[in-house]
Amino acid sequence: MRVAQIAPLFEAVPPKLYGGTERVVSALTEELVAMGHDVTLFASGDSVTAATLDAIRPRALRLDPEIKDWVSCVNRQVELVRRRAHEFDVMHFHIDYFPNSVMTRQSTPFLTTIHGRLDLPEFNDVYGLFPEVSMVSISDHQRTPLPDLNWVRTVLHGMPEQKLRPVPGVAQEYFAFLGRISPEKGIESAIRIATACGVKLKVAAKVDVADKVYYESAVAPLLARVAANVEFIGEINDAQEPAFLSGAKALLFPINWPEPFGLVKI
Amino acid sequence: MRVAQIAPLFEAVPPKLYGGTERVVSALTEELVAMGHDVTLFASGDSVTAATLDAIRPRALRLDPEIKDWVSCVNRQVELVRRRAHEFDVMHFHIDYFPNSVMTRQSTPFLTTIHGRLDLPEFNDVYGLFPEVSMVSISDHQRTPLPDLNWVRTVLHGMPEQKLRPVPGVAQEYFAFLGRISPEKGIESAIRIATACGVKLKVAAKVDVADKVYYESAVAPLLARVAANVEFIGEINDAQEPAFLSGAKALLFPINWPEPFGLVKI
Repeated sequence: MRVAQIAPLFEAVPPKLYGGTERVVSALTEELVAMGHDVTLFASGDSVTAATLDAIRPRALRLDPEIKDWVSCVNRQVELVRRRAHEFDVMHFHIDYFPNSVMTRQSTPFLTTIHGRLDLPEFNDVYGLFPEVSMVSISDHQRTPLPDLNWVRTVLHGMPEQKLRPVPGVAQEYFAFLGRISPEKGIESAIRIATACGVKLKVAAKVDVADKVYYESAVAPLLARVAANVEFIGEINDAQEPAFLSGAKALLFPINWPEPFGLVKI
Repeated sequence: MRVAQIAPLFEAVPPKLYGGTERVVSALTEELVAMGHDVTLFASGDSVTAATLDAIRPRALRLDPEIKDWVSCVNRQVELVRRRAHEFDVMHFHIDYFPNSVMTRQSTPFLTTIHGRLDLPEFNDVYGLFPEVSMVSISDHQRTPLPDLNWVRTVLHGMPEQKLRPVPGVAQEYFAFLGRISPEKGIESAIRIATACGVKLKVAAKVDVADKVYYESAVAPLLARVAANVEFIGEINDAQEPAFLSGAKALLFPINWPEPFGLVKI
């Protein structure tokens, strides 16, 4: 089958460092190629894939300081994909509500996997306009706010089984926090838990532009107070994860939002 | 003629306080109604118009704390307008690149007035996909970064001639700054100019969510140092403007960006 995979432009596919959605899109794309399908991946130009890459932008948006208006890039991506729609048997979108108006008015079948939260009130308004669009959830719970959409399947994550293997002989000396600094992900709770337990906390996480204010106002002062007990090591890549997690007594994941899936857990 | 006017959802049409684009859309809409056209205005529900109002949201987005994802609201607006496109002879959009993919694939004629800057590199990419779309600029200079689009006319602003009249007998005692606190609008320069001249500065301006970090980090400390010389009075409405401007020795407008037009000047 001629399959189009349309990835978000925020991170490369797969991401160099942090990034859930683009990791899942990468695993899915590579497996479809391995199964013998003719796959085209619409993604940022720094993506690495065995599929045919249609590079919408030279670089992933999060690491591209030139780009101020990310929405214009996604609008352009939808238009470029639409112009090639007749070349595919099926198109699989991973970019939320953006394709709906355009793609429901052409004839190639398409579906959308939703990778994020759905509990904002405006999402009912925008997704509710398209009850016919085939939707895939990444957990059954994710559907809760919008149960009446045309959900066709839950597909959990598609990550390779052997991706993370314990590193033998590593002493387990700290609590680990892995992911993203934001109110939803519970970094403040993690710091308090580790401090209360008297266990050192290592934080391997990114700070998004959108979360900089939160980091400066809420997290940095807390970190300053417990500096001896917390080590902030920044973002890590896939190769660094096994040692980071193997050295931990426990992974702290004290989320504070309706996490749609949470790759950190697997 | 059956005319659709499609306004941004950020402010009511006309805006309660600050707001350039929605003010211009309001003046245009009311004049078209006065000329006898059958006009439908797609805008936020707190808009006030003699046209038929199709309320896309109950309230303007900037003053609606419920809304976190404004992009979803604009995507929904485009879809709702598209579903009524056959009811109009012409559609006039004021929402940047959003309508292009959908509207170029239907038959009702439409045009777009661009109210903002065009000098970001990504705009060339997204507008350049649609060289056939009829575009209106609000100044000739605004076109400079994208001269090859299908520019059909420059229409300066359409504000009523008698909107601002001097208030007689008011002493002219200060410099005035009117508009928005942001790096582009030059508030720091205005403060320095007034301080150097030994003249009091009155600032009537909004601080957008997007500019809060700038305000806190750059403007607030500067204001604290010159507190005796600067009065920050916040946003003002149309009725307050004549007295505010009549009491000024001069209006300071030390912009630091390619201002597309600048209603403050008129």
